[in-house]
Parts: sequence; structure tokens; C-alpha cells
Amino acid sequence: MTETQPVIPEPVDEDDAFDLDPEKVTAVIEAVRAGDKPAVLELIEDLHVADLADLLEQIDSETRRQFLDMAWSDIDQEVLVEVEEGVRDDILSWLEPERLAEAAREFETDDVVYLLEDLDEEQQRQVLEALEPEDRVAVAKSLTYPEYSAGRLMQTDFVKAPPFWTVGQMIDFLRASAGELPEQFYDIVVVDPAMKPVGTIPLSKIIGTRRPVTLSALMDEDFRTLHVEDAQEDVAYAFKQYHLVSAPVVDDDGRLVGVITIDDAVEVLDDEAEEDLKRLGGVGDEEISDRVWEITRQRFPWLGVNLMTAILASLVISLFEGTIQQIVALAVLMPIVASMGGNAGTQTLTVAVRALATRDLTPTNAMRVVARETVVGFFNGVGFAIVMGLIAWFWFEDPHLGMVIAAAMVVNLLVAGLSGILIPLALDRAGADPALASGTFVTTVTDVVGFFSFLGLAALVLL
Amino acid sequence: MTETQPVIPEPVDEDDAFDLDPEKVTAVIEAVRAGDKPAVLELIEDLHVADLADLLEQIDSETRRQFLDMAWSDIDQEVLVEVEEGVRDDILSWLEPERLAEAAREFETDDVVYLLEDLDEEQQRQVLEALEPEDRVAVAKSLTYPEYSAGRLMQTDFVKAPPFWTVGQMIDFLRASAGELPEQFYDIVVVDPAMKPVGTIPLSKIIGTRRPVTLSALMDEDFRTLHVEDAQEDVAYAFKQYHLVSAPVVDDDGRLVGVITIDDAVEVLDDEAEEDLKRLGGVGDEEISDRVWEITRQRFPWLGVNLMTAILASLVISLFEGTIQQIVALAVLMPIVASMGGNAGTQTLTVAVRALATRDLTPTNAMRVVARETVVGFFNGVGFAIVMGLIAWFWFEDPHLGMVIAAAMVVNLLVAGLSGILIPLALDRAGADPALASGTFVTTVTDVVGFFSFLGLAALVLL
Repeated sequence: MTETQPVIPEPVDEDDAFDLDPEKVTAVIEAVRAGDKPAVLELIEDLHVADLADLLEQIDSETRRQFLDMAWSDIDQEVLVEVEEGVRDDILSWLEPERLAEAAREFETDDVVYLLEDLDEEQQRQVLEALEPEDRVAVAKSLTYPEYSAGRLMQTDFVKAPPFWTVGQMIDFLRASAGELPEQFYDIVVVDPAMKPVGTIPLSKIIGTRRPVTLSALMDEDFRTLHVEDAQEDVAYAFKQYHLVSAPVVDDDGRLVGVITIDDAVEVLDDEAEEDLKRLGGVGDEEISDRVWEITRQRFPWLGVNLMTAILASLVISLFEGTIQQIVALAVLMPIVASMGGNAGTQTLTVAVRALATRDLTPTNAMRVVARETVVGFFNGVGFAIVMGLIAWFWFEDPHLGMVIAAAMVVNLLVAGLSGILIPLALDRAGADPALASGTFVTTVTDVVGFFSFLGLAALVLL
Repeated sequence: MTETQPVIPEPVDEDDAFDLDPEKVTAVIEAVRAGDKPAVLELIEDLHVADLADLLEQIDSETRRQFLDMAWSDIDQEVLVEVEEGVRDDILSWLEPERLAEAAREFETDDVVYLLEDLDEEQQRQVLEALEPEDRVAVAKSLTYPEYSAGRLMQTDFVKAPPFWTVGQMIDFLRASAGELPEQFYDIVVVDPAMKPVGTIPLSKIIGTRRPVTLSALMDEDFRTLHVEDAQEDVAYAFKQYHLVSAPVVDDDGRLVGVITIDDAVEVLDDEAEEDLKRLGGVGDEEISDRVWEITRQRFPWLGVNLMTAILASLVISLFEGTIQQIVALAVLMPIVASMGGNAGTQTLTVAVRALATRDLTPTNAMRVVARETVVGFFNGVGFAIVMGLIAWFWFEDPHLGMVIAAAMVVNLLVAGLSGILIPLALDRAGADPALASGTFVTTVTDVVGFFSFLGLAALVLL
């Protein structure tokens, strides 16, 4: 580091915000297969570790191993923390335990914790043994907290200070301990002698204040603390809701034990949104890089549940076999009523699941929302009853058939709205994830009600 | 602010990370209706502005107006930026233009821009006129950038410095301009004489370094710049991918014009995830607080599209009216084949849409994923063909019927896997949002193929 001669480098090209394009991936794959190590290293030289992780996810397992054989000691090994689980497992099965332990020594403690969750006991022991004693204690302690809790997410490396310090003392302390500071931090946590947090101060405030001012005069006393056992989704919610960049984490005695920073919260926020999306779509936590057999196995149970509900709907139809035999037009039209109900129910359900996740749907407004969904279902039901009633009338030249499908449409869209909101609310009240099972329940209801109302009315009116 | 006597306040209770519970909302509603202003103010005194926004979203419009009549001048008026659009429109129709302009004077420029997007021209003019000249120029400039771009998201209030400054000069500058600094900032942007960014330095690094060191020796030259016209989803992606907390934004000439901070990126990230979820569920950007008529109107078109695809499926069935009349069991079983295909297709589609959004599905691995989905569809098809074939055989005591449904199941699940991946890929390639229309296309394909393969095979084999 030169301190005398100011260096003014060229401004960075603005197009390089994203470094990994398909051409680069293809070039890397070719260089790896050709065994051209210098070319590989040159191609990945400027890649951010997150892009390197994407690269490893996008190439097939065999090329990945060739790549790692070639470049492991030259790449940023934090890539282990960045890749998704299936690829990480694949890398871990390739990586010798000693080299894994060596890599982990360089990680932040929260990253080590994250990594250990995926390892078997023997691997865990080896990694833990390789850590510095202080880090080992911190990591082992973090592992005692429940999975997906604040205790697992937090860094144990943070900057604290007593309230009677001045800004000058604080700055001197930071300068003196430059080598041992966390890689990135945004706030100082002010603690009392019992290590209980009493305030936080953003660095921007410290750096803009004169040396004699005490921290107690500067600190924000109205800050938010998280508890080690807080669920990670509550942590992410707090960061988003209150625009936090970091937050102190305390144990049962209210003592400061760690700090969670925004980058971990962003990760969780994104994971939770992905989970809701996937659960609504009937898939588990599969990733695009998973293998055929893994995916087949994961999707089978959900399709199995759907088969049972589909058979239930078929049983309803079979009650009316005689009616269908007499008026075969019913078989032609009946899927329309069921399908419209399923879609209307899914619309309501989607909005409800999202509003529950963002805590916008609460006991306070639940009744109002239920009433509204029923009315919306009724209005749309009447609209499509008119449209479909006329279509059926002219298609099969039978005004009574038109009336029957119109009536069934109103009933089914009304029920769709009601079940689309009541089912996720009930699951949420019961402590279950409304995203997980609502979809099946709702479409089962709309299928059964759709077929039953249409065929039942037809049997009453048309025969 | 006392600077001599250290004050050690009580540690904050760890349970207060979330301040808005339904009981509080109910208490506020009651106090508002009773016209008890002191009680209302006491209840909301400690509420974070984000919780206050949630409160306003959860109460009905009439109570909301009574609340605002009572408390507007006592609350944090930034709540206007925090509430969702429907509620904001409601508040804006209540708020006189002068009071709106007065409130906006106190906002950060990026918040003013966000607010202005929702106003009509006359309101925009009034707000702009009320701003300080410097802010007015910055806001007017931001509004010239496309909606949903980095230029709209950025703050124009940021801290920059020349590379030849020392840490000491930097700190002295910050102390001297304490009152005019942005509310929160995390990095210093180092700029050359032409205002082009040449490096960034996190505050944690400045504060931990001795006074004589120059910024050029300290700065990270390998930083990421965003361009004013970058789409907001690309901005959010960059923040998530590269764990950024802030990033400089440059114009066409590469000159620094603003800074985007993580809280805005988190907001966008969350909005984008919500948009995908809702589009897959067939709803627009409706919120749980929207009114009945608004929602009915928004959902109608999607249900209309679904009606057309359902009628298309019915036309397929009508081709086989004669077959159904002879074997009514076909009418009972046919929805099962269609439903299984629809669900399998939705599973594939959900994973594909998410992977496209997170850029994990790219031209590099697309062919591999298509092949894999086809194989998964085939495996699950065979699995459920066996199950459903046996069920149909024993239910209707007809082995041939079992064989027909088994064959149709394999065909439809294979097609479901293929269309579930190819349709979103094609939409994405064509520049359309794969989340928006894929669902309809996929279920149309699986309905048509499901009914056609099942009824067609039945007509061939069973008659």
C-alpha cells in the first residue's frame, strides 16, 4: 500500500456488473475438457465467487470434478458456501477431509456453521478440529441452536464498546485492532458490563462525530434485538420491515452473543419466497441442478396426493353415470365448471398465501377479506355464468342446459373464493404452512363441488 | 445530548422486535372510533413507521380517514412511502395538496420519486415546487429515467471524495458536514476529476485506518457500478449475487449520479418474487387491501383466458361423444388423466420459472434440463400408469380399460414434463415473462393431450 503517490485507475466499464455469460461457461467447459489449466485460470480470474458458484452449478458433474482437480487450490474456496446444496454435496464427496478442513479455517464463523449442517459427524469433527480454538467454541455454540434460527445465522465476530467510551477512544480501538475486525460491519453495539446491548450506532454516525463525544450520547437506544432462537423467517421479516442492515442477537440472559447482517437476511428472504413459490407449485426444495432420480422421487408424493383427489372427483362423477349416458353433453361441459373453479380458487389462494407470508393478512382484517373474496367469487361467477350459459345454450341448442351450467358456475366460483381464503387461513391458524397443502385442498373442493353441482342440477332439471 | 455523564439505559426487551399485534390494531380502531386522540397517539407512539403503514393497511378506509384527521400532523409522514399502492391512493385522495407537498419536503429524494410516480400531473407540480431547488433538480432528473430503472431507485444524496484525500481529510470533511450527510450510508465513492467513480471504500475500512493513509491506497478498485437505465430486477440481482450493501450509479458518460442502497434492493427483490408468485397463480399486482370491484375486474381477464382453454379441451371431448355414450366409464376416468398432467406440468413449470428468475437456467444447461424433465416425466408417468391402470382395471373390471388409462398417463406426463420446460424457455427467449402465461399454455397442452390420448386410445382399443 503506497500512501504518498495518489493512483487514479481507469473507471470500470459499466457493463461488467454481471460477469458470467453463457459464452464464458462454454469456454471454461472446453478448456477444462482440453486439460488446459492456464486457460481455465485466466477465464475465471476475475469471476466473483458467486459467479464461480453459478458456473459450477451449470456444468455437469464430470466436468465439475475435472475443473476442481485442476483449479481447487487457485479458486476462492468460499465457493463451497455459495453453491446450492446438490452441487455442494457433490463437491464434498470429491474433496478430501483435510482439504475441506483447511478451507474452512479461512471462513467466517457463520459460513462454517452453514457448511457443517451438510456434513456427516466424522467430517464435522475434522473441520471443527482444524479451526482456531476461539472460532471452534463459537461454531460449536452456534450448532447448539435450532436449525433455521438466528443463532445459526449470526456472526460471532462483531464490534462492541462500553457506553462511556468517546468517539476518539472507539476510533483508536478500531485502528489498533484493524487486522482482527470482521470483514464487513455497519454498526457498533454498545453493551453494559453484563454484555447486555444498550444501544447501537451506525458507523456513518461515528465517523461524522467529533472525538470527545461519548457513545452513550450518540447511540440509538430504540434498536431491535433478535433472540438466538428466533426463526430465520422472523429475522428476515424484521430486516425487511425495519430496513435494518445489522442487528444484535442476544441469548436467554439478554447477553450479546452475535450479530446478523443484511446479506444473510437477504439470503433467507429469498429462500422463503422461493419456498412459498415452490410449495404452491407442488415441488419441494429441488434445484435445477438436481439429478433425475432425486427429482422423480421428490415429485412423486405430491402427484400421489393429486391422484387421490382426482379419484375422489371421479367418484362424484360416477354417481351420475346414468345421467351422463342419457345426456353426453354433460361429459363435454363438466370439465369447464371444475376448471374455472380451480383457477378462481388458486387466484384467491395465491393472494392469501402471500399476504400471510408478509403478515398483511391478520386476525384484524381476516373477516373483511373473507367477505370480500366471497363477493368477488359471486361477481365473477355471475359474469362467467352468463357467458358460459349462452355458449352452452347455442352449442347444444338447449336453453335448460345453459341454465344448469350457469347456476353451477355461480355456485362453484363462490365456493372457490370461500375455500381459497378459508383453507389457507385455517392451515395458518393450525400452525401449518398455508403454501404447502392449500392448493390440493382448494382444487379438491372446487372439483368435487363443480362436478356435483353441475351433474346434480342436470339430473334434477334435465331428466 | 450530554457528553460528560455516561447514561446506561435498561436493555430493551427482546420480545419487542415486532411491535404490531392484532390487539394493538383493535385498540387503535376503538380509540379512533371513540374520538380519543390522546389514547390513539399513546398507542402508536412507539410504532416504527413500517408498522404504522401495516396498521393503516389493516383498518378499513373510513376508520383510516378518521385516524388521519386526528393524527396526521403527529405521525411520521414517511408512512406515505411505506403503505401499499391502494392505501396510498386512498390517503392521497384525503390529503390536501399543500400538506402533501409539505410532507414531501422532508423525504429522501428516492422516496419523493417513488411517491411522484403515483400522482397526477397537477399534484406532481405542487410537490416539485415545494422542494428545495437542489432536491427539485435531482427529482426531476430521476423522473427522466425509465420506470423500474436504477435511475428511479437511486438516492442522489451520497458521499464522494477524490482519491488523493487522506483518511484524516475524509473524516474531517464528514465531521464538518455532519448535518448534510445522507441519513445512512455505508461506502464512500472515490471519484476522479470528471466525476467518474474509480473505487469504493466501506466505512468500516476508513474508520479502522490511520489518518495519513490516502483513499487511493485504501479503495477497492474492483467494485460494481450500475447504470441509470439498468432494470430494477438486474439491480436487485446484483445486490443479492454479490452481497452488496450499496453501489454507485453512473450515467451514459460514466459519471457518478447516485447511489443505490441495500434497503431499496431488498424491496425490489421482494417485489419481483411476489410478482412471479402472483403471475403463476393468475393474479395481477392486487393487494390484500384492494377493493372488491378492483379485484373482480383484475381477475376476470385471466379467468376469461382459462374459459377459452377449457372450451378447447371440451371440443376435444366432444369429438368422442359417441365413444363416451358407449362406455360411460371414460367420462368418469378422463379428468384423472388431465389433472395428473396439469399437476406434473405445473411442477416442472414452477421450477423452470424460478430458475429463470434466479438465472440458474441458462442456454448452457437448458438442453440438459429439458432432457432431464422428459425422463422425469416418463418415470413418474410409468409409476402412475401402473397405479392407475390397476385401479381402473379393478374398479370397472376391465383390463383393457386399465391398459388404455395407463398408456394415456405415460403419454400425458411425458408431454407435461416437456411442455413444462419448453414453454417457459420459449417465452423467456421471446422476451416475455415466463411466469405470466406459462401456466395457461401448459395446462391447455396437458388437458388437450390428456383427453385426446385417453379417449382416442379408448376409441381404438375398446370399441
